[in-house]
Amino acid sequence: MTAPATVAVVQLAPRLLDLDANVELSVHAIETARERGADVIVLPELCLSGYMFETAAEVRSCAITAAHPVFARWAAALEGAPGLVVGGFAERSGADVHISAALVDASGVRAVYRKTHLWNREKRFFAPGTELPPVLDTPFGRVSVLICYDLEFPEMARSAALRGADLITVPTNWALDQRPYGDEPPQVMLARAAARTNHVYVACADRAGRERDQDFTGGSAIIDTAGWVLSLPRADQMAVAELSLSTARERQLSGVNHVFADRRPELYTDIEVRQAG
Amino acid sequence: MTAPATVAVVQLAPRLLDLDANVELSVHAIETARERGADVIVLPELCLSGYMFETAAEVRSCAITAAHPVFARWAAALEGAPGLVVGGFAERSGADVHISAALVDASGVRAVYRKTHLWNREKRFFAPGTELPPVLDTPFGRVSVLICYDLEFPEMARSAALRGADLITVPTNWALDQRPYGDEPPQVMLARAAARTNHVYVACADRAGRERDQDFTGGSAIIDTAGWVLSLPRADQMAVAELSLSTARERQLSGVNHVFADRRPELYTDIEVRQAG
Repeated sequence: MTAPATVAVVQLAPRLLDLDANVELSVHAIETARERGADVIVLPELCLSGYMFETAAEVRSCAITAAHPVFARWAAALEGAPGLVVGGFAERSGADVHISAALVDASGVRAVYRKTHLWNREKRFFAPGTELPPVLDTPFGRVSVLICYDLEFPEMARSAALRGADLITVPTNWALDQRPYGDEPPQVMLARAAARTNHVYVACADRAGRERDQDFTGGSAIIDTAGWVLSLPRADQMAVAELSLSTARERQLSGVNHVFADRRPELYTDIEVRQAG
Repeated sequence: MTAPATVAVVQLAPRLLDLDANVELSVHAIETARERGADVIVLPELCLSGYMFETAAEVRSCAITAAHPVFARWAAALEGAPGLVVGGFAERSGADVHISAALVDASGVRAVYRKTHLWNREKRFFAPGTELPPVLDTPFGRVSVLICYDLEFPEMARSAALRGADLITVPTNWALDQRPYGDEPPQVMLARAAARTNHVYVACADRAGRERDQDFTGGSAIIDTAGWVLSLPRADQMAVAELSLSTARERQLSGVNHVFADRRPELYTDIEVRQAG
């Protein structure tokens, strides 16, 4: 058993194209979450830049590398205790820009993941990543990350869980979608299915508010390993839950059933195959 | 575009171990669904035998082959118009018994699928199937089938959809599970995620009632390609919806996004790999 972790997701509303303001916003969010006891803190996708870019020049004006001082500030905000921040940023890499997430502890940037599935106009401005997300060992358990549209591909959560993730963090910018009934956003339903089918914790940090003509869902949620929502954001736009992350590894469902051992990988050979004609 | 199909799922309560009574029950259910205009009719898992077996002898007392006259009766009930019945039975095959689903049209048994993922005590009495489910061409569209616990493995719905299914039928016996909030059974949430992530229709025919000490969920549902429930059973235990099945093939989500083309199969190589150590 790992130590229980207090997990917080913070539903920020960054200022589009205002990197300096968003750096302050992100540091303030981390400090506020720390005051509430958070060990693992998840911030939204592209939380240092905003999302509704109209030109490549706008994107590049906010694109930074993992060496940018903001990440040292995130690390400093964690000083004195174990902790992890996962937050999204536009990552400059040569001629390319990626939609990335930094995983930062008190020692600095531990890993960067570049989103591998790009939604809509993201394809105009960003290059897709070419590697699976990391699974990071922390004092609280093993933490992975998916970004937004990645979650709509069940292969991605499956992969992270098979590679040992206890918690999948999801920095996201969920554009407001149709909801013919009920309060639950469809994206949260997919996050719950990812949690339940893999017996893994999922923590989604979504955007709130509106940017240019785009409304966001405000669908942040912390989800347990059976796929139930444990915590939604309160008035302060933060959802918090205490999780014993390593309990995700207890994947025996009955005396003879196990989430992974019951898989039939010899039958799943067409998962790697593209669409049938 | 294929012709619109009226899809019906019938939430039967078979009599445990009473094959003859269940044959009549199944034929009556098909006739009743036909009277309501159904083209595709889904019946529960093991609807000719019941589920809560205690001995192998009980299982064998209800196990039949695909040559059993019940399937000719199902075919006869469809006579005069195109139609398809998908229903579950205990299938005898040499020394083995499988949890199978027959896909029957007016010409007779078109295909049989043997459940590949067995739940709990099913492992005591049944042998798992070794082949993926068929995807059957019908005048209404392409129909596949998963049985109960199969649905908890996202690889299975993905495979059926990649192989061209427009509709995944799900004969099931969902044991009543914990539901900490809300009305939606967790298994229906997984069926909705399978529908949405694959842009495929899903029609689940669950059991109602109680058998020995087991309560069932009564979670039958017809689900659209965006993962929303279109129809739940009414007082007559039947849910009905008219679906243009081939619209499932319209998988372009935006000008540049496609449910399948956006996949990154070159990254999904560990789906075939067993659990990490």
